[in-house]
Amino acid sequence: MRATIIHAPGDIRVEDREYPTVQLPTDVVVKVTATCVCGSDLWPYRGVRPTRKPTAIGHEFIGTVESIGSGITRLAVGDLVIAPFVISCGACPPCLNGVTVACEHLAGWGGRDDSGHPVDGGQGEAVRVPLADATLVKVPGDTEPDDALRNSLLTLSDVMATGHHAALAAKVGPGRTVVVVGDGAVGLCGVLAARRLGAERIIAMSRHADRQAIAREFGATDIVAERGDEGVAAVRELLGGVLADSVLECVGTQESMDQALHSTRPGGALGFVGVPTGGGEVPLRYLFDTNISIGGGMAPARTYIPELLADVLAGTINPGRVFDVVMPLEEAPEAYRAMDERRAIKVLLTP
Amino acid sequence: MRATIIHAPGDIRVEDREYPTVQLPTDVVVKVTATCVCGSDLWPYRGVRPTRKPTAIGHEFIGTVESIGSGITRLAVGDLVIAPFVISCGACPPCLNGVTVACEHLAGWGGRDDSGHPVDGGQGEAVRVPLADATLVKVPGDTEPDDALRNSLLTLSDVMATGHHAALAAKVGPGRTVVVVGDGAVGLCGVLAARRLGAERIIAMSRHADRQAIAREFGATDIVAERGDEGVAAVRELLGGVLADSVLECVGTQESMDQALHSTRPGGALGFVGVPTGGGEVPLRYLFDTNISIGGGMAPARTYIPELLADVLAGTINPGRVFDVVMPLEEAPEAYRAMDERRAIKVLLTP
Repeated sequence: MRATIIHAPGDIRVEDREYPTVQLPTDVVVKVTATCVCGSDLWPYRGVRPTRKPTAIGHEFIGTVESIGSGITRLAVGDLVIAPFVISCGACPPCLNGVTVACEHLAGWGGRDDSGHPVDGGQGEAVRVPLADATLVKVPGDTEPDDALRNSLLTLSDVMATGHHAALAAKVGPGRTVVVVGDGAVGLCGVLAARRLGAERIIAMSRHADRQAIAREFGATDIVAERGDEGVAAVRELLGGVLADSVLECVGTQESMDQALHSTRPGGALGFVGVPTGGGEVPLRYLFDTNISIGGGMAPARTYIPELLADVLAGTINPGRVFDVVMPLEEAPEAYRAMDERRAIKVLLTP
Repeated sequence: MRATIIHAPGDIRVEDREYPTVQLPTDVVVKVTATCVCGSDLWPYRGVRPTRKPTAIGHEFIGTVESIGSGITRLAVGDLVIAPFVISCGACPPCLNGVTVACEHLAGWGGRDDSGHPVDGGQGEAVRVPLADATLVKVPGDTEPDDALRNSLLTLSDVMATGHHAALAAKVGPGRTVVVVGDGAVGLCGVLAARRLGAERIIAMSRHADRQAIAREFGATDIVAERGDEGVAAVRELLGGVLADSVLECVGTQESMDQALHSTRPGGALGFVGVPTGGGEVPLRYLFDTNISIGGGMAPARTYIPELLADVLAGTINPGRVFDVVMPLEEAPEAYRAMDERRAIKVLLTP
């Protein structure tokens, strides 16, 4: 099969790999129908995170179950499934608490599973899925999704679940005012999640017309293009002299965290989901003095998918709009370039 | 009148000061019936925070309204009142959000009010209270409280409100498991607050028999005397192999914060109310990887007093048990020594 392999920073190749097969009774093999490039895939691409050897990459995919292990009880060949961005067992204390990203048997796509077997990356034609009954979510019904639905289903792997996580951590709810820092796919999904949770006022911080347009479509009531102190001042002016109740940090740099912290009112809540790339410490005294709470981290996508999926299927949210470019899998190197150069918000790849 | 003045680290004196009078229409003068020494008063006493000139000290008191300004509408001469540990206006956006400690007209006892007039410290015979209608809470009824009730009313000024704030920030609720780091008056009140909010299991970390006894009385189901990794291991063992859902940090040192962080399960919540005295930073990457949320800071005591007061008056909580020593105001220097040397948990002073 064909699969995307990162060899070194800037060096993405689509290569032949052995077609996966069931290795363990709890495995299934999924034929991938759509996958995509994540903002966090750009960290190794840019060399921010090291690549020690050629590694299968990609952690977002949907597809069709092609073969199943003997222990599988909840999935059948032919099922359309959504893969969350990590593998989890569903039975350990963290999973039972809904924190599947802290699963005691956690594994990542492109790495090794809990039993030491290699796991395929998501950006390929097929993937062996360990702990599949617990990890995958079946899409009910058996109609073939059209492109718009396919795109929205794929966002549940990561970006829509992550935007939802940011919004929950920021305590978004009816009547709350919200600022979203970051206009990537996660930030845009954060806007959509905030609207879905009933926020009254949603300010998207963005300097790009195409992203501003999607933010508006997703429910942003206001756009702030300024950053730093000017950005904070603009937020304050829009909110009648005060800062926001809820702030979503969807980037992961020190600058974006500072922007988020200083946009949050005393007693407000900051939800952060950008993978921290800066030195990344939170000044405790500032939190103490302002009563701001902070939470977030890696989204337990597996926990959120059923609830978000219901809304996608009902047509009340359409997060797939974050995909502005679709390419064949073979063009993965160009997909990375387009995302790296910010020519694309998020690129969907079809194997 | 007699009032407690800090001159320098270790130098506490009870001195004559001019008896306060109403200066502004929104003032009242309160004759203090009970006041006390706070763990945070020990920071200037120990020189951890500087004392640049002789300063009236103390920020917890209850008393009787003795005279009122012409603009006072909610209080009358003779009312028994509780003073929260800061002065707030009740009308600005932070106050309306319930975050009275971020009041736009915030002032502290022993400092200057928003209009520049000096404000008395709480450890004295009488106090001019600015913005009194908003700041003070009247105790309903007109019976003279007995000593036990007096003591519990006084804890609402700070320590019981602060323990409650820690518990709320740690998302304590029915069925949650709780660890309380710190066995001072705030930590003990944190135990009581956790029980009041319905926690199922409450582990108090304490090495002192007298404090352990009060913790048990307040609802602790378990005591852990170990600290550091051994303390974490003990918590994990008590909770059947997992860490706590909710952790209350009630000290303010880097060690206690580390203890608290490492006692919190993935996806759990840490409420911190110890005034940060260490370098005090929280590693963002750790929060990201564990999905732990953190919140707390200065408690908006004014916001919480009515709710807690109802329970004190109903007799369902008895936080006044944290006072293990009562002295006349004249013995304030000895009260500080006793608290500093940990011979007393918390000393109540009677003017």
